[in-house]
Parts: sequence; C-alpha cells; structure tokens
Amino acid sequence: MFSIISTKELKAHTIEMLLRRAQFYVEQEKAGTDQSLFTHNVEGTVVNLFFEPSTRTNLSFQMAANRLGLRTLDFTVETSSVRKGESVIDSLQTVNALGVDIAIVRHQLDWPALVSKEMFNMALVNAGSGTQEHPTQALLDALTMQQHFGRLRGLTITIVGDVLHSRVARSNAALLQTMGAKVQLAAPEEYKTSDIPGAVWVEFDQALVETDVIMMLRVQHERHKTISAIANYNDYYGLNQRRLEMLSKDAIILHPGPVNRGFEITDEVLLDSRCKILQQVRNGVAMRMAVLELCLQGGKHEKLVSA
Amino acid sequence: MFSIISTKELKAHTIEMLLRRAQFYVEQEKAGTDQSLFTHNVEGTVVNLFFEPSTRTNLSFQMAANRLGLRTLDFTVETSSVRKGESVIDSLQTVNALGVDIAIVRHQLDWPALVSKEMFNMALVNAGSGTQEHPTQALLDALTMQQHFGRLRGLTITIVGDVLHSRVARSNAALLQTMGAKVQLAAPEEYKTSDIPGAVWVEFDQALVETDVIMMLRVQHERHKTISAIANYNDYYGLNQRRLEMLSKDAIILHPGPVNRGFEITDEVLLDSRCKILQQVRNGVAMRMAVLELCLQGGKHEKLVSA
Amino acid sequence: MFSIISTKELKAHTIEMLLRRAQFYVEQEKAGTDQSLFTHNVEGTVVNLFFEPSTRTNLSFQMAANRLGLRTLDFTVETSSVRKGESVIDSLQTVNALGVDIAIVRHQLDWPALVSKEMFNMALVNAGSGTQEHPTQALLDALTMQQHFGRLRGLTITIVGDVLHSRVARSNAALLQTMGAKVQLAAPEEYKTSDIPGAVWVEFDQALVETDVIMMLRVQHERHKTISAIANYNDYYGLNQRRLEMLSKDAIILHPGPVNRGFEITDEVLLDSRCKILQQVRNGVAMRMAVLELCLQGGKHEKLVSA
Repeated sequence: MFSIISTKELKAHTIEMLLRRAQFYVEQEKAGTDQSLFTHNVEGTVVNLFFEPSTRTNLSFQMAANRLGLRTLDFTVETSSVRKGESVIDSLQTVNALGVDIAIVRHQLDWPALVSKEMFNMALVNAGSGTQEHPTQALLDALTMQQHFGRLRGLTITIVGDVLHSRVARSNAALLQTMGAKVQLAAPEEYKTSDIPGAVWVEFDQALVETDVIMMLRVQHERHKTISAIANYNDYYGLNQRRLEMLSKDAIILHPGPVNRGFEITDEVLLDSRCKILQQVRNGVAMRMAVLELCLQGGKHEKLVSA
Repeated sequence: MFSIISTKELKAHTIEMLLRRAQFYVEQEKAGTDQSLFTHNVEGTVVNLFFEPSTRTNLSFQMAANRLGLRTLDFTVETSSVRKGESVIDSLQTVNALGVDIAIVRHQLDWPALVSKEMFNMALVNAGSGTQEHPTQALLDALTMQQHFGRLRGLTITIVGDVLHSRVARSNAALLQTMGAKVQLAAPEEYKTSDIPGAVWVEFDQALVETDVIMMLRVQHERHKTISAIANYNDYYGLNQRRLEMLSKDAIILHPGPVNRGFEITDEVLLDSRCKILQQVRNGVAMRMAVLELCLQGGKHEKLVSA
Repeated sequence: MFSIISTKELKAHTIEMLLRRAQFYVEQEKAGTDQSLFTHNVEGTVVNLFFEPSTRTNLSFQMAANRLGLRTLDFTVETSSVRKGESVIDSLQTVNALGVDIAIVRHQLDWPALVSKEMFNMALVNAGSGTQEHPTQALLDALTMQQHFGRLRGLTITIVGDVLHSRVARSNAALLQTMGAKVQLAAPEEYKTSDIPGAVWVEFDQALVETDVIMMLRVQHERHKTISAIANYNDYYGLNQRRLEMLSKDAIILHPGPVNRGFEITDEVLLDSRCKILQQVRNGVAMRMAVLELCLQGGKHEKLVSA
C-alpha cells in the first residue's frame, strides 16, 4: 500500500511525478477529453472519512474519485460524537474491513500519530491532521506555482497569517524546501512558532516587495476566537489594496480557501489577476486524481508517467 | 450554457418541450424500459448545492441525475455556517472551478439576484430561491395537470395558503399564465401579497366549486411561527372532508410536499382519488431528467424532441 | 417484492441460501475477483432511509450496493425533524414514488408495525427498528459463527448486556433458534426482559465456560443514561481479561460495533484471536450484497444459488 500522509516523507521524485501527472489531467480537462478515458487506469472504492466538516476538500476528492471512475462512500462525523484518539483506529479498522481501498482522512487531531499504516491493507490519504499536515493542499499549491513560474527551485514563498495553528503552512514549508524553494513566514507575534525548520521569519510588508508567492492563510474562526477579535485585522495582517500595490507584478497570490472576505483578504485581491485561488481549486481535482491513482497503483511511478 | 432560474423567463415553447420530454420519461419508466438506454444521451457532473435542507427535492434531483447516468456530488450546508450573500458567489465559483457541469442551487435568499449566469461556465438550476422561485416544482406541477386534463390552456388553478412567503406560488403563477391558464390565490389576510401579477384573489370556500386544480401550499413551520400558531388552522385554511365535498369531481389536488398531516391537509384528503401528490413526486424525477438534459445540451430543443 | 423485515419471518431455507450466497461473495472478495463480475446480476436504485444516524450500517449497505453496481441515494434525517409515526409512511411513499427499488430503513420506532409492505411496489430492508429487529445484523452474525464452527445447529450462543433494549438480541435469538442453536441471555437485573421466547437466562460468569459464542451487546449511551452511570460497568457486566481466561479456547466473541472500549469490552478483548469483530464487518458487506440481490430478484432462490 502506498499512502500520502506527510509532505516531510515525500521524496522530490515522487512530488515531481505527481506534479507531472496532475498537469496531464489539467490539460486533458482543458482539451475536453472524454471522461471515460480516465476510468480504465484504476479501480477501487474510496471513503471520505471526515471527522471535521470540510465541504471544499471533500468535494474535491469526490470529484477526483468520480473522474477516475472510482466508487465513493461518505462518512462525515460530528466532532462531538466521536471520542478522541482511539476512535480513529476503530473507524479506520472498520472501513478497512468493509473492503475500502483508500481512506481519505481528516481529523482535528494529528491522527497519523495515533495509527500505524501497517495496521491496514488499504491506502491512507491525509486530508488534514490537526495543525500538522495537509499534504494534498501543499501539492496543489506547488502545481499552481509551477504552472506560473515553470519551476519551484529558487522561488521565494511567503506564508502569512496564523502560522502557529496552520497545517497548510507546515505541509507547504516541508514540500517547498524539498523542492529547493525558499520559505518565509510572517505572522502577528502571538501566531509565530519555532517548529517549522528551515523557514525564515520576515515582516509582512517588507516581504511583499521581493516574494514570488504570497500564500495567505485562512483565519479559522471556528478554531480559535482570539485572532477573530483583533480589531482591523485586515489592516494589520490581511491582504488589501495597499499591499497589492507593494507586491511584485509577477508574483502570485494563493489561499487555501474558503476566504473570509474583508478579513485576511479583501474583495480587490480576489479581482486581481495575480490571485490564483480558483486555479488552485481546479488544480486540486487534478492533483487528487494523481494522488488517488498513485495510491491504487501502490506507489509505482512508471505506470503513471507512461500513461 | 442553458440555465433554469425562473419561470418568468421560460418561453411557452421551452415549457412545452420540457413537458413532452418529461412525459416521455414517465412512459419509459412505466414501460419498465432498461435504464441504460437513457445513459447515453448526456454526460457530466451535477452538484446539489443546498444551503437549506430539503430531502425531497435533493433526492428527486439525485434520482434524475442517476437515471441519466450523470455523476453527482453533494454539498449540504447548515444555513448558520454560511455568511449570507457573497458566500453564494464564492461557493458557486468553487464548484465551477472543480469542473462541475450543473449546479443545482437552493438557498433561503433570492440567490439568482446575487450572481450573474455569465460568471460561470456551468449551468445553474434553481431548486428554490428565497420566497421567489422554484421552477422545477412549477414544471412538475404543470406536467401533473396536463396528464389529467390534457391541456393547461383555459384551466383554473387556485393556490391556497401562505402565498406571501411561497416560492411555489410565484413560480406556478408565472408559468401557468404563460401557458394560458387562469391563476387564483386564496390566503388568510396576513398572508396575502400584491406582487403576483395577473393572479386574482378569491375566497377559498367559494373557489372550491369551480376550480380545476386546488394547489395547497405547505405551512413552513420552520420559516415562520405565526401561521403555525393559528388555532384550528385546518378549519380556517386547510383542506379537509368538508371542503373535499365542495370540490368538483373532476378537479385535482396538488401539494409540493412534504405534507403536514392535520394542518394544511387532513388524512382524508390524502386518500381521495383526486389527490395527485404521489404522482407529483413521480413526475418530479421525470421533469428533472428533462431539465438536466436540456441544460447539458445547451438548451437545444431539437435533440431532445427527436430522442 | 421480497422484503427482509424480521428474522421471525425468515424460513431456515432462506437463511441457508443467504448464508451460502454471502459466503460466495466473501470468497470472491478474498480471491480478488474482478468487481465487474458482480454488476451484471441485478440492477436498481437503493435508498438508505435512516431516521437514526448509523455510520457503520449505512456504509456497509452503501458498499454492498456499490459492489453490486446498484445506484444509491442517501436520506439521513435528524430524529428531531421528523414527527413520529406517520412520517415513516409518508417518507416511504415518497421514495416509492421516486422510483426506488429498495428502501433500507432504520428508525427508532418499530417502523414495520406502522406500515404494510403491500403499500409499496419496492422492497423494504429493515436496517434497525426500535428495540425489535435488525435482521441483517443477525444474518451476518450467523455467517461469522458458521465460518468458525461449520454449522449453527447445536451451538450455544450467550448474548450479554442490555438485552431489554436490544434489537440485535431479539433478531439473533429468533434466527439462531430457527437454525437449531441454543440461545442464552445474560444481563444485569434491570436489563432483563421476558419477551424473547425460547431463550434461557444465565449468569454471565457461569455461561462463559461452556458457551460457543459470546455476543456482547453495545451499551447505547445515546439511548439511555442509566446503564452508562453504572460504576465499574466493565467489572460488573463487561468482557475483560479475567473473563477472557474463563472462556473456552474454541469460543468466539462477537459485538455489533461500534465498541465502547473500556466499557462493555476492554482493549485486551479486541486483541484476542477469538474476537471476530472485524470479520463481522467484512461479512456484513457480503451478507448485505446477498440480501439486496435477493430482494431485487423477488426472493427467487434458484437464481442466486446457481450463480
């Protein structure tokens, strides 16, 4: 079984292979290639095991599975109804016993720390684990950067916002450094952290001038209330017209979605041609197709690349 | 892209074409025609984007999509978790970027007023917008009337209940008048409205004798509490044994469902042979097949009619 | 239409036929037989009509339907939003009118007592009714026992826990006695009942030594609070290391899942080789495939057996 759990474990050649395969799917989609061509490569049943609500990521994985002709099951659990920790194991063992081929798991805890891949004869895909990892988001972000710049090596990416609680920041920082990019972090003092190796802390306004990518993090109102209460958060740490003007013309703006309009990002940003948020969504489906396919083929690269 | 947003925009020849195609599907279903015959006409992915819970309409669209062999995604959002207004645009842009072909949208707001069809390269189907429109309900109601009377032109339809808040009433009034029928409205004084052009206000009991169709509206307990609190609502404005006896033998009774037994409708009504509520449900699937197919074929009538 | 409502109605030869067919599917799954071989036998649309949340049973039926190539609709209702009693009829009549072939129904009430199978031209499968029946659970339990012992006749099964409120206990007791097994019940005094004919009340600890099967019931914290409040419930009536040692080496342990670890069952039990809980999950999919197939074939045994 080949699982996608953490960007820390992903080798550069696996990332490159996924980028290439996802780009292939993006181009097929643009060319309007008949759907049915994709549905011969792989077969299997995928379950979305979401212990945290997430419409966007859930739909993206459903769409990817559908386009590959995979069967999908849905399992969305209210956080409150699940006892923490061991229930992840029991739930995973149950879907494994049901005969599922891939479990796509999202949990408010760092669930991979609670289980061992070897317990299951199905693949695991991490769709979000606590504040730790969200590897398919980092992969689709990398695809979006590569489409614009033609490379990842040598790029400077500045990740901005509540870095402390962000799995998007952690997954991106690891993946981007593996690929030879430079990662900068900018956050209000209370949302800094020292657990992201290799990344450099910078001042938001100063970073704008020279960065290639501004990655705005979502303010997660549902997770913690402090940041939401900051008066004038957008002036303080959001992207807006003033900051757009400081940003390089060739830079791009990313955001994992959904955006809090007027908070971490203003309406003008969404209308700016450098903003690639909808392209990220589009790339998300293609990247998840590549990820699911790789898992079902047991991590064998050749088959994917030759297709 | 061809979208179905409002019955006010629907031309008589489009409505006739949809009625004819839906009737074709009703007959195929009765004849037990092999499902797989329908799955060649169109291809695509449909998302149910429901910002308001609605089991019945949701299932009906799912069933229609399934019978056409379309792939379906489901997105049901708690009203409370969605900030009003702009979130509809963001959600629609996201599903559009996911590569969805049709978004079936229900929202407690008049959502078509918040977006422009031109923003998307997917079709939109309105499955309910605020108090304004529910066009597929009006279409399936028209099909049910036409099956019974063989025509819509010249029929008298009396819509009864909380007309003020009813999108079913507004969608039906526009469609039926386009098709040459006469629309009458009956409501308690506090649930009247002056914004339904062409419709005539009548007394419920008087209307019963001469109407061809009695369309009972659902009392939406979840929307407003006033009407629910009316003592003896059924005596006052509900359909019951006494009123059944006043109704013409050839008339039919419609209700968009689900019924509140004992409130706007009593058990005797459900057992009366003039009551066509289950036939409406059956017609709903066929009409939604016709609607989805028309959207995927870009509104070109010929293909549908010849099929 | 052939429906599966109650184990009391199931004849021994129907049960044997279902056990044989489910075993066939278990073996095909183990052999890795191409999925597409199963998708020719039957065609139809299945709706999961769950008035009570149940992830596990819901997923199991979804998986079974998927493996048979059936189309599935999902309808999960908050208990609170459904008025009791008649709403089951209205909901069933609606999905029947939608053209569904099988409705899989779970409800906190004894729903089969509220409807008549003859009202519908679709099959009904009981996925749980009040405290009365859960026939597919009893069928999959029987399959698990038969796989281990090669027979049901002559086995002694001890069902332990809140027997009073348990539909699993009632469905198993009827089915097992039909198949010639001996059923024993063990419960705290306040959870005994006299309405399970043929079953014998025993002391838990005494029964352990001679029983072939220990079937632990789930403590349903969500249904009643009294049992949850029993201090040291596990010592009192749960399975644990001390009781494992009393249990025969050839016995097996069953549990309908999900387990409350540390309550009716301890972690050691889950690691014991006699514990067949995950095998029950695996068997559940195969048994539900056999059940759905039988319903769609109108209860004709021959076709199934020869396949």
